[in-house]
Amino acid sequence: METTATDTRFIINLALSAWETQIERFDKHLEKLTDQQLESEIAPGRNRGVYVLGHLVAVNDNLFTLLGLGERMYPQLQDLFIRTPDRTVPIPATAELRKYWYDVNAKLTPALRNLTPEEWLGKHSSVSAEDFAKEPTRNKLNVLLSRTSHQAYHFGQIILL
Amino acid sequence: METTATDTRFIINLALSAWETQIERFDKHLEKLTDQQLESEIAPGRNRGVYVLGHLVAVNDNLFTLLGLGERMYPQLQDLFIRTPDRTVPIPATAELRKYWYDVNAKLTPALRNLTPEEWLGKHSSVSAEDFAKEPTRNKLNVLLSRTSHQAYHFGQIILL
Repeated sequence: METTATDTRFIINLALSAWETQIERFDKHLEKLTDQQLESEIAPGRNRGVYVLGHLVAVNDNLFTLLGLGERMYPQLQDLFIRTPDRTVPIPATAELRKYWYDVNAKLTPALRNLTPEEWLGKHSSVSAEDFAKEPTRNKLNVLLSRTSHQAYHFGQIILL
Repeated sequence: METTATDTRFIINLALSAWETQIERFDKHLEKLTDQQLESEIAPGRNRGVYVLGHLVAVNDNLFTLLGLGERMYPQLQDLFIRTPDRTVPIPATAELRKYWYDVNAKLTPALRNLTPEEWLGKHSSVSAEDFAKEPTRNKLNVLLSRTSHQAYHFGQIILL
């Protein structure tokens, strides 16, 4: 048996399903958590759940620009949750962050499903054409795989709340 | 541009690299942790680091049989770390578990790299041929993607020690 172009689409769909599984698990757990639980620390002295939530919203929102899918929905979150540690500046209300989480993923999930295999194997927006020619693994699909692990990493923390 | 069989190997290699990245990160962090840190709880009342380590050894060791790569190296860990909760039965010494972690991955990583794309898209050992015919996504590659998320999930916890 030889693998074919059909397999490429099939394999990319497996990677998309792995991503969606992580989002769905997080969704379900988030529904079970009260705001008070979410606002507590995941472990003594560590990030609060609400900061981890904001961080994941910001990282997912950033995929719109990184993967060429459009503009970020909540660009103000980038500084707050990617470049600023927890408990140094005020952050949006927990209810707002829950809404952002659903909004970003509701738009992101179908946009990811719309990318073609050729697009998945093309460069993402943070790598130059020159560097991409040397390192073709720096493609959109690799971003998805890496973000799936990142999402799972933080889910392992949120589950401790 | 059409995708080709070459792309299939290329994409599978991306998934393998994502897996190896998680193993390497865990390795590096494990080296930094003292036995005492590893024997403490990841959060109050939660699993000890050493239990999470044993769990990951058992899950990785199980990949030998699940992916048709050979026999498990430490079959006695399956009951201890997959079916038994932490702090209910005695577990191996921390130094032993560290050794098992390295041993299993040292054998597993090259074995995974040796699978062909056709084998990756073939069924894993826990699904029947009949069920696999209906659900071809239940292949070896899907196991790898799922275990990569699982490894990242627990790394997000070990990092709290």
